[in-house]
Amino acid sequence: MATQTVSDSLPLRVAKQISSHPFAPVSSAEIKETASHIKAQWPINTNLHFKTITLFEPAKAEAVPFLEAEAAGHSLPHIDRRVFVTYYLRRTNQFHEAVVNLTQQVVEYNVRLGANMHAPGDGDEIFEIERVCLEDPGVQAEIAKLQLPEGSKIVIDPWIYGADGVEDDERMWQTFMYMRDPAHADDPDSNHYAIPLSISPVVDSSKMEVIRIDHMPTGKDNTIKETQPWKPKAGNEYISDFLELRTDLKPLNVVQPEGTSFNVSQQGTSHVIDWQKWSFRVGFNLREGMVLYNVKYSGRDLFYRLSLSDMNIPYADPRHPFHKKSAFDLGDAGAGIMANDLKLGCDCLGSIHYLSAVLNDDKGEPLDMPNVVCVHEQDAGIGWKHTNYRTGRAAIARSRELVLQSIITVANYEYILAFMFNQAGELTYEVRATGILSTQPIDDGVEVPWGTIVHPGVLAAHHQHIFSLRVDPMIDGHANRLVYDEAHAMPRSDFNPHGTGYTVKETLVEQSAGLDLDFDVNRTFKIQNAAVRNPVNGKPVAYKIHAPPFQKMISDKESFNYKRAEFADRNIYAVKYRDDELFSGGKYTNQSRGGTGVRSWAERKENIVDDDLVVFVQFGINHVPRIEDFPVMPCEILKVAFKPVNFFDKNPAIDVPPSTQDFNKSTLVSEQHKQPSVEGKVEANGCVSCEAPSSKL
Amino acid sequence: MATQTVSDSLPLRVAKQISSHPFAPVSSAEIKETASHIKAQWPINTNLHFKTITLFEPAKAEAVPFLEAEAAGHSLPHIDRRVFVTYYLRRTNQFHEAVVNLTQQVVEYNVRLGANMHAPGDGDEIFEIERVCLEDPGVQAEIAKLQLPEGSKIVIDPWIYGADGVEDDERMWQTFMYMRDPAHADDPDSNHYAIPLSISPVVDSSKMEVIRIDHMPTGKDNTIKETQPWKPKAGNEYISDFLELRTDLKPLNVVQPEGTSFNVSQQGTSHVIDWQKWSFRVGFNLREGMVLYNVKYSGRDLFYRLSLSDMNIPYADPRHPFHKKSAFDLGDAGAGIMANDLKLGCDCLGSIHYLSAVLNDDKGEPLDMPNVVCVHEQDAGIGWKHTNYRTGRAAIARSRELVLQSIITVANYEYILAFMFNQAGELTYEVRATGILSTQPIDDGVEVPWGTIVHPGVLAAHHQHIFSLRVDPMIDGHANRLVYDEAHAMPRSDFNPHGTGYTVKETLVEQSAGLDLDFDVNRTFKIQNAAVRNPVNGKPVAYKIHAPPFQKMISDKESFNYKRAEFADRNIYAVKYRDDELFSGGKYTNQSRGGTGVRSWAERKENIVDDDLVVFVQFGINHVPRIEDFPVMPCEILKVAFKPVNFFDKNPAIDVPPSTQDFNKSTLVSEQHKQPSVEGKVEANGCVSCEAPSSKL
Repeated sequence: MATQTVSDSLPLRVAKQISSHPFAPVSSAEIKETASHIKAQWPINTNLHFKTITLFEPAKAEAVPFLEAEAAGHSLPHIDRRVFVTYYLRRTNQFHEAVVNLTQQVVEYNVRLGANMHAPGDGDEIFEIERVCLEDPGVQAEIAKLQLPEGSKIVIDPWIYGADGVEDDERMWQTFMYMRDPAHADDPDSNHYAIPLSISPVVDSSKMEVIRIDHMPTGKDNTIKETQPWKPKAGNEYISDFLELRTDLKPLNVVQPEGTSFNVSQQGTSHVIDWQKWSFRVGFNLREGMVLYNVKYSGRDLFYRLSLSDMNIPYADPRHPFHKKSAFDLGDAGAGIMANDLKLGCDCLGSIHYLSAVLNDDKGEPLDMPNVVCVHEQDAGIGWKHTNYRTGRAAIARSRELVLQSIITVANYEYILAFMFNQAGELTYEVRATGILSTQPIDDGVEVPWGTIVHPGVLAAHHQHIFSLRVDPMIDGHANRLVYDEAHAMPRSDFNPHGTGYTVKETLVEQSAGLDLDFDVNRTFKIQNAAVRNPVNGKPVAYKIHAPPFQKMISDKESFNYKRAEFADRNIYAVKYRDDELFSGGKYTNQSRGGTGVRSWAERKENIVDDDLVVFVQFGINHVPRIEDFPVMPCEILKVAFKPVNFFDKNPAIDVPPSTQDFNKSTLVSEQHKQPSVEGKVEANGCVSCEAPSSKL
Repeated sequence: MATQTVSDSLPLRVAKQISSHPFAPVSSAEIKETASHIKAQWPINTNLHFKTITLFEPAKAEAVPFLEAEAAGHSLPHIDRRVFVTYYLRRTNQFHEAVVNLTQQVVEYNVRLGANMHAPGDGDEIFEIERVCLEDPGVQAEIAKLQLPEGSKIVIDPWIYGADGVEDDERMWQTFMYMRDPAHADDPDSNHYAIPLSISPVVDSSKMEVIRIDHMPTGKDNTIKETQPWKPKAGNEYISDFLELRTDLKPLNVVQPEGTSFNVSQQGTSHVIDWQKWSFRVGFNLREGMVLYNVKYSGRDLFYRLSLSDMNIPYADPRHPFHKKSAFDLGDAGAGIMANDLKLGCDCLGSIHYLSAVLNDDKGEPLDMPNVVCVHEQDAGIGWKHTNYRTGRAAIARSRELVLQSIITVANYEYILAFMFNQAGELTYEVRATGILSTQPIDDGVEVPWGTIVHPGVLAAHHQHIFSLRVDPMIDGHANRLVYDEAHAMPRSDFNPHGTGYTVKETLVEQSAGLDLDFDVNRTFKIQNAAVRNPVNGKPVAYKIHAPPFQKMISDKESFNYKRAEFADRNIYAVKYRDDELFSGGKYTNQSRGGTGVRSWAERKENIVDDDLVVFVQFGINHVPRIEDFPVMPCEILKVAFKPVNFFDKNPAIDVPPSTQDFNKSTLVSEQHKQPSVEGKVEANGCVSCEAPSSKL
């Protein structure tokens, strides 16, 4: 690992006054300034390929006193403003990591990273790879063998190369090739995933050239065939231009005649949101997208920081080159940089506030990212209800939610990511998986047990989506612990003579560890503050974690998939907090080798009792495709919830005003639907026929 | 079992012409007519106590030809109209079951049921028990010992007695006693559950008198103390009159300016609903509440009948009399008879159509049940989305749901029950558990591991809610099978050299059985029609079952709890269809002994392959109360979903019109929230202070 020069004896300069909040994302000016600091480290005209220019968050030891002073309204301690940078010397494999202190106007750290540390992809790179492939003579020769109809259009999707330890030390891209339905060849929104081809060029991203052309097996086994002339196949379009749409859906509008109940306060590059006793700061960065800081309820601390840490998507097809398909969509690409520009009335319904962000491009210039987060309220049905059967009086409150939603597109696939808050002190992280399946060609008449045919000639391989949510808790303070409850039957005894009793036992997690759910004993993880007790029942205040079960990493323990996705084998990882340990799959996931993620951190077996604890919550789906998931899959919804347990002294939503017609202004439609009652007609044969005027039954 | 006389040789009479649909609930006139037929079986002036007067659904062998003729528009075969009745000779333990054929004008069946067959409770009975307890001199003597403040009000909640085999052959009620907060003693909506007392009278419901007064243990063990003078305790109210409400929630209205997309056609006492390619018939009865019949999508058969079959709620406290707390809220009471009269703008938001029903009272008279089901559409967020990263074009459809919701109050507790349909061919059954915890007194300073203190002096015991949903499928016809998929790692081999491959294997369930989920292998149950193949991939058409895992019955296998709740030990039960097997806990659950429910049916080990199969899906929660669940608990939401698997030939929602601002009419509020950007002020000491104008951070 070659370290670039960093002057130890800096020229004396006056520290710059920077007023940004310590959690505020870097601004356009800061991106430019940071890039020039880095460029200044190199001979003039060195062509740098910037990957990340992002906030280097202050050490917690610095940030906490700041937050405390801020909450108390005291004058704020000074924190130097630092920016984290990764970059290449363009067209080389020389990958660097740097920290620029903008307050001190100095590059504090600037090193070339060692082997098997590779940067994520970026947009310009992807377009260049597409071009490089299409222009490559070898690739063109293969395409020629397809003997495609004149005017056909080829589309290349560059994919992260993955890792299998076979000559893969250099940074490469595996590309997948498709063609558009010849009937819609000129429409760039024709769904090329419906016509996958078997040619798969590999690009070396330092040389930016095709170094190999892989051919996919398309039968039952590993057999690779010469590229064959293409046999015409039908397309399968998803854009409305090509579809016959249903016509009987009536509009449904969400109206807030008096405005919203939330308030967004923009403070430089971050936003502070207040809503129904909740308050928090929203950041946004290239890798994680939305980050929530300093989440409080009624002024009480709950979470220091919340973000999606990473996700891994390993595929089931064991054959080359598919066996390397194992994407880390945050580490290999970035939830921020892939965030959609959300459109009013399309992505969100109701009264919407959009948050925009600034990220960086590959030249170190600011990149405007408009409307990457939408903020809105939604009705979530009944929040609580009780009817007194003696009086008939119903006490009822609806549940209102505040939603922060961001949508990311990772080539073929989409994730809709949302933090949701409710009035009962509950915070939910929701993932909706949608978009287009990653497809590959399959011969007619062939079936395989690792994928589903979703269109003639098109196989969608099974795959897992494993998400890792990073939760840095602050339940009434920083000294927290992780415990889990289990319910067990009481043994039969004189005290339990009928075999019906059961008890709940709490177990303390003493050291950093990976842990699993167990529904057979109702195992429930809780983040507790043992020093703060509920005033009524004396229990430690806590938030519990509701996470859905899932099939963990199926790849075996010796596989690269398992070694790299360090979070994917456990429902919960709990570790002691360390600065700069944000990413459960490791800081550099692209073609990674493992050993730098949360499993490794947990193995330190550090004390996590009444200490600064970080919890990673894993959840996911084993996606066995259905034909119904094509051409675009209906959302599959996953939710992780955090709910108070003996944190308040009663239902925190008990003070929500009763649900009334005066407030809700619903419409009675029963009358408009009233149909003439059906009369039976007795027929000659004694049978009775009913006429249902407007029914298909 | 003594059979009442039923004439074998009936006087010749002309069959009555009845035009009701075979699935239409009984009408007011039919209830009256049925009651008179039953009364006519007995000497004049015999006082009958009616429990159930409800549709006796036709045998499937009769109903199917009817539905087929109906679908084909042919003339309809005749089916006799039958009504099922249960009743007592009032003030006796003589419980009867009868079937009246209204077409033939004859009582076909009328038998006295044997030992350990008891009817559910009913409203009049409950009020009478409350009165009997309060008037009982023994109970009054116990109350006197409490030395309550003048003007105090006692409230009695009658509970199903439960069963432990200890002198419990006769039908009894265990009652729980509470008092109102003396500060609100005259408000009948004051929350008496906040002040439970330790006196528990037992009532024999044949004699309708108090036969025993139990005293509750209130310490750590079984010790029973003499009734002590009451020590003043604070109340804990849930009605808004007594609460300080939050004031910052702005209205959120749901508006359908062009009306709803659904159509409700009332046909006598049942309703046919059409919405977005779905069609089905809605029935309603005393025990199950909502029942869906003949559920179709695009005219294709999906479900013959869907309903909640039963639920069981066993409690964790092993001490007398709590060990018997194990309610079957459908079998012991009835989801229909307990259904709330839903109010516009309170229980449902948007454009609402209400369905009403008619049930019977204890005198055999019709009982109007207005607005027991609300029907409305709701927006369910994004349904599917894909953005072409090359063109930036986003294709997006929102998800609209149709909801049929019914809310039941079971003394202290509420369940919000809903069938939900979406445009992707998915059907979801949702349960929201809310209402008030069942409470008992606990001494100051005592903690127990089988409950949580939710208010000073108030223990809420842990308890399980185990639901059983009955699914009578008809996936493209009646001959269906149950299979399950599992995903397993491929062993390492030349074909899987990197240990990453996995395959999905389908297993056929050959005989009726109880089955369990296993998330470690992603076990997924599917109801298949093996005779109907997907036109694209040749797979059998199927619907899969998404059910959340839960801790099954904790009580041991020898316990009455286990024996009685025959559904509570398995995620799935699959049995061969038999007429009149609707209730997975048995037909008569009150003080039942077991042996008459779904576990017993499964033990017949009948063929269920390509046969008329019925599936019971169990789900639930182990409710370990939090203080946040009092005085009314925030809804805990459970969902079971049925999703097509290779049933359609693509995403069935692909034809939903794109989500547009023109259609959705959302409002941009970003501007209205714009705050002046915060400027940092450098202070004399060099620190920077930020002023966040409207933030608590």
